[in-house]
Amino acid sequence: MSEFALIAAIRRRVADTREDVVLGIGDDAALLDVPAGSRLVACTDTLVEGVHFLRGTAPADLGWKSLAVNLSDLAAMGAKPAWALLALTLPDGNAAFVDGFADGFAALAGAHGVALVGGDTTQGPLTITVTALGFVPVDRALQRAGAHAGDAVFVTGTPGDAAAALRLLQDGRVPGPVLLARLRRPTPRVAAGLALRGVATACIDVSDGLVADLGHVCAASGVGAEIELAALPLSRTLSVAFDANACHRFALAGGDDYELCFTAPAARADAVMHAGATLDLPVTCIGRVVAGQGVRVLDAHGNTFAVPHAGWEHFST
Amino acid sequence: MSEFALIAAIRRRVADTREDVVLGIGDDAALLDVPAGSRLVACTDTLVEGVHFLRGTAPADLGWKSLAVNLSDLAAMGAKPAWALLALTLPDGNAAFVDGFADGFAALAGAHGVALVGGDTTQGPLTITVTALGFVPVDRALQRAGAHAGDAVFVTGTPGDAAAALRLLQDGRVPGPVLLARLRRPTPRVAAGLALRGVATACIDVSDGLVADLGHVCAASGVGAEIELAALPLSRTLSVAFDANACHRFALAGGDDYELCFTAPAARADAVMHAGATLDLPVTCIGRVVAGQGVRVLDAHGNTFAVPHAGWEHFST
Repeated sequence: MSEFALIAAIRRRVADTREDVVLGIGDDAALLDVPAGSRLVACTDTLVEGVHFLRGTAPADLGWKSLAVNLSDLAAMGAKPAWALLALTLPDGNAAFVDGFADGFAALAGAHGVALVGGDTTQGPLTITVTALGFVPVDRALQRAGAHAGDAVFVTGTPGDAAAALRLLQDGRVPGPVLLARLRRPTPRVAAGLALRGVATACIDVSDGLVADLGHVCAASGVGAEIELAALPLSRTLSVAFDANACHRFALAGGDDYELCFTAPAARADAVMHAGATLDLPVTCIGRVVAGQGVRVLDAHGNTFAVPHAGWEHFST
Repeated sequence: MSEFALIAAIRRRVADTREDVVLGIGDDAALLDVPAGSRLVACTDTLVEGVHFLRGTAPADLGWKSLAVNLSDLAAMGAKPAWALLALTLPDGNAAFVDGFADGFAALAGAHGVALVGGDTTQGPLTITVTALGFVPVDRALQRAGAHAGDAVFVTGTPGDAAAALRLLQDGRVPGPVLLARLRRPTPRVAAGLALRGVATACIDVSDGLVADLGHVCAASGVGAEIELAALPLSRTLSVAFDANACHRFALAGGDDYELCFTAPAARADAVMHAGATLDLPVTCIGRVVAGQGVRVLDAHGNTFAVPHAGWEHFST
């Protein structure tokens, strides 16, 4: 399959038009209309075979996930996704891989009305970089900075599931479909991000691990935070598969969940819960913002629970 | 060097602020202001070690070139570059590599006032994906479609130099500094792209090879083109290093030049030449747009000159 056939195969499968796409795939660059009164929101994330996903992962799951991790970043900003660019580096022009990849990408892009407006296909070690672009009304974006002492800390969904699935795979076991889907087809919490505009004081998506990512919020906001171990929302599937200690470690330090962790004034907890109920998405208060710095996890006795590592970091030794 | 130290090293070297950057590196996504009356222009390009550049290429040259190939795409649209995102995949956290890369990136970014507003650093085979964002006033963008039979065909600079330098390197020889700079530090023709708004009827940057890229313009415009072999602007350095036949082949089929190839009404040739003179950039009329399809190269006798291959394509066999 030649480079141009490959691009054609992707275009057949992934929508590349929206009303605000003046010029999409097929020229030197895309021409796009950002709505008046909105700011452009832009992010990029790379998945590398053997680092971010196991060799042999289904191409459709890679297509989905490569977009999902980027839409998750837009969600954390309270942004509405609009367009994506795809830089796909493949060892060879395998048609089945490309078709599968494009189908998975298209499934998530379609769900969010995202148009693929450009990209690059190159030969080399399997590496996928997606750039996602969206917009947010001026001064309505969520940011990492903005948490205040006294705010409550919330998380969407049930963190830990993706890390548990990865652990099972690495141990040569087969995770059940629920855990596996959470690793391979994470749901970017786009609707939650939109609903949290004007409610959340700070927000981040959980990609490195709950403690590490809440730590980024604390650092950006100049505050500390406490998480109550007993408050962590563990999925039933996770609780059945692992003992409590393992579950807590997955939930606190496991990455790849792509849930939102955010802060809001305690007085707005009702609004937060209402947003979650409206979206049929579990939202759980897991702690509070405090003066100081860093994230402490407290067990039922108020003692510090040691988190195994501070979160995923590349080039760590 | 940890991932966070690596990001900090890049930030120290590359400017990450402009007035229109509301929020740059350090959050889940960047927040950017596109000026009223302008359209967003977006593109992404990947460089893979061993495919787009030889192993052992200086990190600073990679930093420069990874941005240059993207600014060249914006130039071909007549867009003004504003922001970039950098997805850098490295085998290890080598501090000297990162510092050099960032310095080369910063040198070109600074020359064009481009702010680095986000990115991703990951561990894996050396691969660099840059996304460049810029803007162009509504309805002023240059495109591949728009060439008309009777238009003249122009090219900036002296195509062929980069391919000649690559050939010398591949043959174990050392290109002179002029040719080498054209391969390793190509100049995106941003100012030329801006000057050609309202003058050029179609435009593309020469990355795959002059005939191949002019072919893209023809296909998008529904026309054909003829190039006069004798009109090709060959650099003196190239002419001294290779015989005429080799020079023509480099100029016609060599990629990696990042010059602009564009069409304009023959009656606007003076305006084109004036733009070139103002920018101190050679601009040469190399042929004409004709009815039909495809690109023909004509020798001094009006016979077809066979071009060795149709241009760079990944996954070609």
